[in-house]
Amino acid sequence: MAESPSPELVDALAHPTEDDVAAMDAWWRADNYLTVGQIYLKSNPLLREPLTADHIKPRLLGHWGTSPGLSFIYTHASRLIRMTDQDMIYVTGPGHGGPALVAATYLEDTYTETYPKITEDEEGVLRLFRQFSAPGGIPSHVSVTTPGSINEGGELGYSLVHGFGAVFDNPDLIALTVVGDGEAETGPLEGSWKGISFLNPERDGAVLPILHLNGAKIASPTVQGRKDPDDLRKLYEGHGYEVIEVSGDDRPGMHYRFAEALATAWAKIRKIQTDAREHGVTGQPRWPMIILRSPKGWTGPHEVDGTVVEGTWRAHQVPLSGVRENPEHLKILEDWLRSYRPEELFDADGAAVDLVRRANPSGEKRMSANPAANGGGVYTPLKLPEWGTFGLDFAPEERGTFQKESTRSLGEFMAEIYRQNPETFRLFCPDETNSNRLGSVFDVSDRTFMEPTNDQDVKLSPSGRVMEVLSEHNTHGWLEGYNLTGRHGMFASYEAFGMVSVSQTIQHAKWLEEGVSLDWRTPVPSLNVLLSSTCWRNDHNGFSHQGPGVLSTVVNLRGDVVRVYLPPDANCLLEIASYAFETKDRVNLIVQDKQPQFQWLTKEEAYDHCQRGYGIWDWAGNEDLDSEKDPDIIIACAGDVVTLEAVAAAQIIRQQLPQMKVRLVNVVRLQTLARPKDHPNGMSNQDFSETFTDSTDVVFAFHGYPGVVHQLVHGRPDADRFHVRGFIEEGTTTTPFDMVVRNRADRYHLVIDAINNCKRTVRGGADLKRWCEEQLAKHEVYKVEHLEDLPEVREWKFQGESADVSKAGTSDSGQPLRA
Amino acid sequence: MAESPSPELVDALAHPTEDDVAAMDAWWRADNYLTVGQIYLKSNPLLREPLTADHIKPRLLGHWGTSPGLSFIYTHASRLIRMTDQDMIYVTGPGHGGPALVAATYLEDTYTETYPKITEDEEGVLRLFRQFSAPGGIPSHVSVTTPGSINEGGELGYSLVHGFGAVFDNPDLIALTVVGDGEAETGPLEGSWKGISFLNPERDGAVLPILHLNGAKIASPTVQGRKDPDDLRKLYEGHGYEVIEVSGDDRPGMHYRFAEALATAWAKIRKIQTDAREHGVTGQPRWPMIILRSPKGWTGPHEVDGTVVEGTWRAHQVPLSGVRENPEHLKILEDWLRSYRPEELFDADGAAVDLVRRANPSGEKRMSANPAANGGGVYTPLKLPEWGTFGLDFAPEERGTFQKESTRSLGEFMAEIYRQNPETFRLFCPDETNSNRLGSVFDVSDRTFMEPTNDQDVKLSPSGRVMEVLSEHNTHGWLEGYNLTGRHGMFASYEAFGMVSVSQTIQHAKWLEEGVSLDWRTPVPSLNVLLSSTCWRNDHNGFSHQGPGVLSTVVNLRGDVVRVYLPPDANCLLEIASYAFETKDRVNLIVQDKQPQFQWLTKEEAYDHCQRGYGIWDWAGNEDLDSEKDPDIIIACAGDVVTLEAVAAAQIIRQQLPQMKVRLVNVVRLQTLARPKDHPNGMSNQDFSETFTDSTDVVFAFHGYPGVVHQLVHGRPDADRFHVRGFIEEGTTTTPFDMVVRNRADRYHLVIDAINNCKRTVRGGADLKRWCEEQLAKHEVYKVEHLEDLPEVREWKFQGESADVSKAGTSDSGQPLRA
Repeated sequence: MAESPSPELVDALAHPTEDDVAAMDAWWRADNYLTVGQIYLKSNPLLREPLTADHIKPRLLGHWGTSPGLSFIYTHASRLIRMTDQDMIYVTGPGHGGPALVAATYLEDTYTETYPKITEDEEGVLRLFRQFSAPGGIPSHVSVTTPGSINEGGELGYSLVHGFGAVFDNPDLIALTVVGDGEAETGPLEGSWKGISFLNPERDGAVLPILHLNGAKIASPTVQGRKDPDDLRKLYEGHGYEVIEVSGDDRPGMHYRFAEALATAWAKIRKIQTDAREHGVTGQPRWPMIILRSPKGWTGPHEVDGTVVEGTWRAHQVPLSGVRENPEHLKILEDWLRSYRPEELFDADGAAVDLVRRANPSGEKRMSANPAANGGGVYTPLKLPEWGTFGLDFAPEERGTFQKESTRSLGEFMAEIYRQNPETFRLFCPDETNSNRLGSVFDVSDRTFMEPTNDQDVKLSPSGRVMEVLSEHNTHGWLEGYNLTGRHGMFASYEAFGMVSVSQTIQHAKWLEEGVSLDWRTPVPSLNVLLSSTCWRNDHNGFSHQGPGVLSTVVNLRGDVVRVYLPPDANCLLEIASYAFETKDRVNLIVQDKQPQFQWLTKEEAYDHCQRGYGIWDWAGNEDLDSEKDPDIIIACAGDVVTLEAVAAAQIIRQQLPQMKVRLVNVVRLQTLARPKDHPNGMSNQDFSETFTDSTDVVFAFHGYPGVVHQLVHGRPDADRFHVRGFIEEGTTTTPFDMVVRNRADRYHLVIDAINNCKRTVRGGADLKRWCEEQLAKHEVYKVEHLEDLPEVREWKFQGESADVSKAGTSDSGQPLRA
Repeated sequence: MAESPSPELVDALAHPTEDDVAAMDAWWRADNYLTVGQIYLKSNPLLREPLTADHIKPRLLGHWGTSPGLSFIYTHASRLIRMTDQDMIYVTGPGHGGPALVAATYLEDTYTETYPKITEDEEGVLRLFRQFSAPGGIPSHVSVTTPGSINEGGELGYSLVHGFGAVFDNPDLIALTVVGDGEAETGPLEGSWKGISFLNPERDGAVLPILHLNGAKIASPTVQGRKDPDDLRKLYEGHGYEVIEVSGDDRPGMHYRFAEALATAWAKIRKIQTDAREHGVTGQPRWPMIILRSPKGWTGPHEVDGTVVEGTWRAHQVPLSGVRENPEHLKILEDWLRSYRPEELFDADGAAVDLVRRANPSGEKRMSANPAANGGGVYTPLKLPEWGTFGLDFAPEERGTFQKESTRSLGEFMAEIYRQNPETFRLFCPDETNSNRLGSVFDVSDRTFMEPTNDQDVKLSPSGRVMEVLSEHNTHGWLEGYNLTGRHGMFASYEAFGMVSVSQTIQHAKWLEEGVSLDWRTPVPSLNVLLSSTCWRNDHNGFSHQGPGVLSTVVNLRGDVVRVYLPPDANCLLEIASYAFETKDRVNLIVQDKQPQFQWLTKEEAYDHCQRGYGIWDWAGNEDLDSEKDPDIIIACAGDVVTLEAVAAAQIIRQQLPQMKVRLVNVVRLQTLARPKDHPNGMSNQDFSETFTDSTDVVFAFHGYPGVVHQLVHGRPDADRFHVRGFIEEGTTTTPFDMVVRNRADRYHLVIDAINNCKRTVRGGADLKRWCEEQLAKHEVYKVEHLEDLPEVREWKFQGESADVSKAGTSDSGQPLRA
């Protein structure tokens, strides 16, 4: 694909023959026919008999308006592929136009290959119609069930980011991406045109955006549909594109004009790529885009009941309603369907005739069968180094005595992954790679940037492959596109701002949930999300930077897809991340702060701890584990910052109230808390009892909102005994900074809680409580005066006696990490 | 403010005198000095002695880079105000530059008026410095604590939407809105330039965007900072603006050039307004914007350790680190601070001198004291019609026998609110007003649209005040700005797509949480969110349209601010909405579907039910409420669709298994389930026992994810007995459409659950279970064949005996709705 196309080829592309147009037009009519059929018909699929009310579905669903434009573009792209052998996928921004794309894949045979019950005959056409937006059938959007799709078009805004993600490191691929003028109004979409500033023509493929202006959305015109065309052209030129415009509704004129536009755009793309690949990158190229203006509901009923429909918002969904009841509407529908001349398009059996089929590319060149859009099929396993090389070496007796930034170790690990996987792994992060201490990746790869650079810039070049732009929507969406086309990566964000793109996280999880039920969808690399700069370390930044909402949002999604990890230290983080990179079809959420933090577990201990997902840290408690007796109190923790407080609280009890027996439990895989019937990672009842006993009260120091633990332990024995101290929203004016007294979850409060909740009265407990309260009061005064923590908090170190990690819980409890 | 400014005034504005420049420059130096002081100094605030390491804070926090540009713009805007008496607020997109704005409000006296402890003397300056990003102090961003702010600049992207929201229906106000080039990369911001397509110069005020390109973000250059300036100009011209550019770092040159740019922009705004107000609206005006290019960290250290800092990303946060340890850095800091000549700016007491003060506007014209930015102060109470006029009239015996679209009643109610409040109420909705059945508002007001319209458009005009654009970020953000400036409204969205803007919902809730603790922040109208087109009615649209995530996200926020309502029918919706419109400082989340639904409660019953927030619907159960005996089973429900299933399930039991005593509980104010200590709405222990008993098992049909109920009932007596059937993610390929068997939450499954969980074995229970299973199997087959529900499901009607609503629960339980 490296050579520039010949002028003759481009000329031929730009000037279709009459035969070409005849084939494309037939294919288009067939697609439109099948689109209307999906919306309206439940029998008589090929109109072999006069249409009656009985043939009409009881409930009319679907979106006609955008559909004819989508299929018009599709058949032209197919012609381009046939003539050039271009590798191309079709990203359908106006995904509501599902029936058009389903029809396209059906006409390309892919649908029948994928779903053999939808045969290529009259019976199959009927099934195709009946399953649309129907029980046991398919949704009305281009979705996971649609072969060739990597974009669900229900939640609008992500077509371009998915397109860009798909072509990074895919030099031969073009993602033809249709953006509807509805979607074009969304913030995420408007923010995604700048993808070209991060697209390197030497190494990456291309996105060809087609802004499809049909002028209206559900009930009114679109902004861009009514904007002065000169302004609109300027807007996209301003974004850096070469704008090619096509308008009209005349046939065959539109075929000729659009073919020429597409040929021009394609030749331009190929020239940019050839130049870059022959001579290297020289500045930001001006990539082509097409603005296509065609009527909404093009070829549909022009007028209904004296009101114009075609070309207006009225064509958005079902342009003819009450068809069963209204004979006039029924007549319009029949005329409309027959206007496509189905008898010319389908043979006696009901299969598409040759004239139609001629418009199709063949094999994997069909956009619905392009392997890139079923990423597991083109998947290159990640070469994953041993994380041990990047883990922290220390003796068990050194635990809790020194601090390290855990995410820095992850950065070093990822640098090696970059080194070993120079074309199939990327880190995506809204400008915070260094801030999140992942900067070691820059030893291997710069940040990508196609705009001019100067000598004050650091680690920034077109050849870089670390993706930074101050947009969660872009970085998250790019990774989704990258994953769905079979490549690996990680999205890293400040914890609070993970909420900006959480709707994408959810929609992607839903995509995977749906995908795992489809045999033909090959498993794709997991979406790995690292949330750093967490709520507990952002008091100086104020409330906007404090929010553990992503965790509580995704924990409600399906357990076979979504996993939540709260590593307490560097070695656990590495084991968790390493495992996450190995998995497929998951959303792995890892929450860990970037600040220096105490290190608890040696590599071996970390490995074991993560396999189990939770464990008793006997070195942090003071009970005799060989005894049959339950401890007086359990202090549990999940999350790095709160783990320090929990260990420190247990230490206060060990040292100052040794007669009270305390057990410390750390949970690294959060969902092990759930019952096995509620989550596949849930620990067994026996393991739960061995870990948390059946009746000892549990003071739980939790990273996120307390309700998350409450909902996870629901149904566990005597769940009320779980007293959770988690993140609670408070005003910043009353809170300290960079310390953990916030939300009363600190060590002193935990000790007070432990004493208060202990079922027996421990001698000396009241004194210790009083001392803790004094410490808290002292702390309040000290920090305001000295602008830092009390020395005994600041200089705290772990002081232990024993050094064994958990004895409770076994690796066959619940679902082990690597099972 | 209606007349056009005289050419003389504009000329004077554009050409500041030397005295003007001297005052502005002195003010600017003072602001910069105070900015640097906030970042670095913990003593010796006015450098009255040589700087030593002891004067430096132990931890250096804050963002210097953007600050000098912010204060430069500020003092020029102040001059404009002094000369024109313009009403203006300052929206700080680069909110990280908090110290610059705090300093500005301090120099304007507003800070001291607001926080008397921060006096205008050396002691006050010291306090100002020490509180910054410090325990017990203020966050580093422009935030709720900053007088004059309506925008938290931590989560970037919303400055323009807040600016537009502030000026809708505020004809005399200009929101000068600074957009940083970091923020400019976000999707929400890029999507918000189109606000001018919805801004009517006749009736609304103006937004003056200043795109402040200092070229870099935290670690690298910005896209727009490096774009070809011609392209950038085209981009904003394409968005519809007249672009005015100012660049440089020279003084006084920059003062003269910026003054001229600001004068030009202001005159242009006034001309647009005057023309529109004198002659009516004629097309979309070309509003001015300014692109200001000034160095990042302007006037700060140019070079540190041989590396350029000023004008690069290195100036983003703290340009000089290790100042306590590094004498050379300490020296640079001292030189830097002294370069502003503090001795000229502050008098012997430490108060700003007259030269500085001359730059300030006075009284409420100071941008930090503009009443619009403290919206409760300019609040006009909403004229709220009696909702009864729009409620449904029916006799108790008709309940459950007819269906209505409940949101249609709300639309009629809101139409009347529009009528009675023509300048202080708006509905904001991403193009779904009609789809959500709220279209009655169009009887009173069109959709706003400034672009050209044609005769196919319906209810669309510049004079319209219903806000529709296909962007949750725009519509949500506009409402926030509208609320924070004291006006009322509602944001309505499809339930699933509420997640797109949920981060805004959270950030706004956090703003309110913080605001309620500040006496000087006057309470503002609540942010009312209606989620319609819910998860249970979107199977035909597929998984993208199914997601109750907003509910489970906001339920974790603070109870004094966030309220969640699940009205079961139209009359309850009206009472809840009416109450929501009355409240202040809340986020009210109302979830209700738009499809026809059964109506359960008469107006009086609905009023009572909503006051209590929950209640036993004895007409739906079959127990003898006067008996002491607990029922065999409780079927509870929260949410409209699931309420139908719960009532239908209870009816099956009543009719087919009357020996089993069932109680039906409906919950309309979700948080009444929580313990009073966990939520102010939580029902008392006694009420909880009276409603749910202490031991009867509860089958709970819930609208959202089951975990929400699990977390809410945590700590209630024997909480494990709550068996929740809520929304669980499933693949769309296996689910039916537009019916409620999804997630096994339908009536038959509820009956089976009830029998399974009943503590005693009821004779006939096994038979009824079997029958229910047969019904389910029959339903599966029927719906695929007929594409609709089983007739007995489709045609179900309530058949009751008694007609009294709840007797349990009293209006003094928990916090009554209108307490």
